[in-house]
Amino acid sequence: MNLFQILETTGHEKVFFCRDEKAGLRAIIAIHNAGFGAAMGATRLWPYASEIDALRDVLRLSRGMTYKAACANIPVGGGKGVIIARPEEKTGELLKAYGRFVDSLNGSFITGQDVNLTPRDVRQIRQETRYVVGADEKSGGPALLTALGVLQGIRAAVRYRLGRRDLYRLKVAIQGLGNVGKNLCRLLHEQGAELIVSDVDEARTEEMTRLYEAAAVEPDQIFSRDADVFSPCALGGVLNGTTIPRLKASIIAGCANNQLEDEQADSHGLKQKGILYCPDYVINAGGLINVYHEMIGYEEEKALSHVDRIHDTLLEIFEKAEREGITTHEAAHRLGESRIAETAPNETGSRLN
Amino acid sequence: MNLFQILETTGHEKVFFCRDEKAGLRAIIAIHNAGFGAAMGATRLWPYASEIDALRDVLRLSRGMTYKAACANIPVGGGKGVIIARPEEKTGELLKAYGRFVDSLNGSFITGQDVNLTPRDVRQIRQETRYVVGADEKSGGPALLTALGVLQGIRAAVRYRLGRRDLYRLKVAIQGLGNVGKNLCRLLHEQGAELIVSDVDEARTEEMTRLYEAAAVEPDQIFSRDADVFSPCALGGVLNGTTIPRLKASIIAGCANNQLEDEQADSHGLKQKGILYCPDYVINAGGLINVYHEMIGYEEEKALSHVDRIHDTLLEIFEKAEREGITTHEAAHRLGESRIAETAPNETGSRLN
Repeated sequence: MNLFQILETTGHEKVFFCRDEKAGLRAIIAIHNAGFGAAMGATRLWPYASEIDALRDVLRLSRGMTYKAACANIPVGGGKGVIIARPEEKTGELLKAYGRFVDSLNGSFITGQDVNLTPRDVRQIRQETRYVVGADEKSGGPALLTALGVLQGIRAAVRYRLGRRDLYRLKVAIQGLGNVGKNLCRLLHEQGAELIVSDVDEARTEEMTRLYEAAAVEPDQIFSRDADVFSPCALGGVLNGTTIPRLKASIIAGCANNQLEDEQADSHGLKQKGILYCPDYVINAGGLINVYHEMIGYEEEKALSHVDRIHDTLLEIFEKAEREGITTHEAAHRLGESRIAETAPNETGSRLN
Repeated sequence: MNLFQILETTGHEKVFFCRDEKAGLRAIIAIHNAGFGAAMGATRLWPYASEIDALRDVLRLSRGMTYKAACANIPVGGGKGVIIARPEEKTGELLKAYGRFVDSLNGSFITGQDVNLTPRDVRQIRQETRYVVGADEKSGGPALLTALGVLQGIRAAVRYRLGRRDLYRLKVAIQGLGNVGKNLCRLLHEQGAELIVSDVDEARTEEMTRLYEAAAVEPDQIFSRDADVFSPCALGGVLNGTTIPRLKASIIAGCANNQLEDEQADSHGLKQKGILYCPDYVINAGGLINVYHEMIGYEEEKALSHVDRIHDTLLEIFEKAEREGITTHEAAHRLGESRIAETAPNETGSRLN
């Protein structure tokens, strides 16, 4: 392994390795872009089979964060933390040692919770550093802001593809009724949209039927239902060679991460079928926006109007894709790149804290 | 390469990789011990043939710094920085990018100049960070404090080996008349010692002869001269299988780095010959002590009395070596280890700045 060669390929600025023998900690923090003085990215705990697997993951995810933040108009760079451990090895000592590691970077990296970390874990980490967010309930909650962002994305796509300014009687098929999916049902129902829902948990679909007159379907039927919008709000990889041919909706707009099983092939598959795809990391940025506002001092009005901007960003991406004859996935990437390039280099960067 | 495995072997806590594409910077900072909240170590610029060479060097040197600081009663951990570049690639931009890297660690690493960096370079780095020392002339200068430390080491060794409390008519053979060597000549002359000197530059030996009545000898003759003390103040590796048999002195006390060509074999060779060796990193710590006091706010009296403690530390090492039947090299290492173990772990560490 030649680390600098890898970093050159991925465009990374910094990678930090840390171990704490007593606490059994082995962790990697990657800073893809430090141009704003601070980089943000959640931390996941995972039993990586090897160090190179952990490194690849932290590099891939921190790079994605740079683009996500840029598209969401959040003035931070992309970062990510990984702790190499099995979930059962997660102890207070390990989390606190990780907190000290984060703290030693003194605000150049700000983190939060990702896979295998809970709000309780974040509070443990917070005992050692203030550069972690998501431990308190000051903000409106990431689920609500994520749902509001998806609603804005649906509005933008409906306007662009269907030429409509309202959502009245719009048919939306929502896959997955977690906290975001349920919030989204409520918001869409308030706008007069008609809902089709699926979830592996029948209690959830029943609740949506009762509250918002949603039509419940079996999980494997949600793709092929007659709908204007398909909204993936569950697992990743749901847009693939098997599901795309079955889709009847002309718009994809949901909060799930990594919706495309194969980014290149499946984004082109959607384009060829004339389906307008809202790039996942753009439309689901409400959670990150929530965390960012928690970090700078939560003010509801500012956070909400920040989320509203997802609407215009998506319109910009749709127009760019059409103008340049590319997929919306590629257009989002290029938009991110151009926004990153506009950022003053490190010299003028100032820390957020 | 499995980095965490390497770090486990070397006992390191953190390794930071950084690149700045525009500035052409590739740098590694290693923190061996962060127990005090801050680690100190100079930065060298070197055209390493490979990344693994650079990594090995930065790990080896930062580990050495932990022991050096511990033996010198300096409450910092050991760190080191390396910039992978040819000297002709050294630009203001590169140095400033490195300065930003150091600055992003916000005082958990404090650096200074090592091989291929000049005070002018340090001033460039300082434009971007206050966590670099050696750019100003507030302090007494590293050469003088290093020489004072070596003088204390000679006094300790003479007292321990020869049972003498003064240096009057003591014969000292000094190899190398750089800034430290010349200062040492003056200090020893003031104590009434008799000097034998060698240097590749004849002008220097002539100066010492004129000022301090030193006897000048050819560089290859200095080892075998009849002297009480041999003081290596030039290159590293001068104590080896060839030179040790030629030594007439019963004490080795000089400021050169890495005096033992083979740490194990040559420290034992000296012990078997009954030569009292002052471990190089203990006796030459005056330079580091100088930098440390520059960092905390230079006060001459405090810095000088700190340097004086090298005397007692060496006595402690000599006694430990005799008591445990080990070399002074090993005794210094064990003393360092016990002092490091006494340090509270990270939890209570507080930054120096």
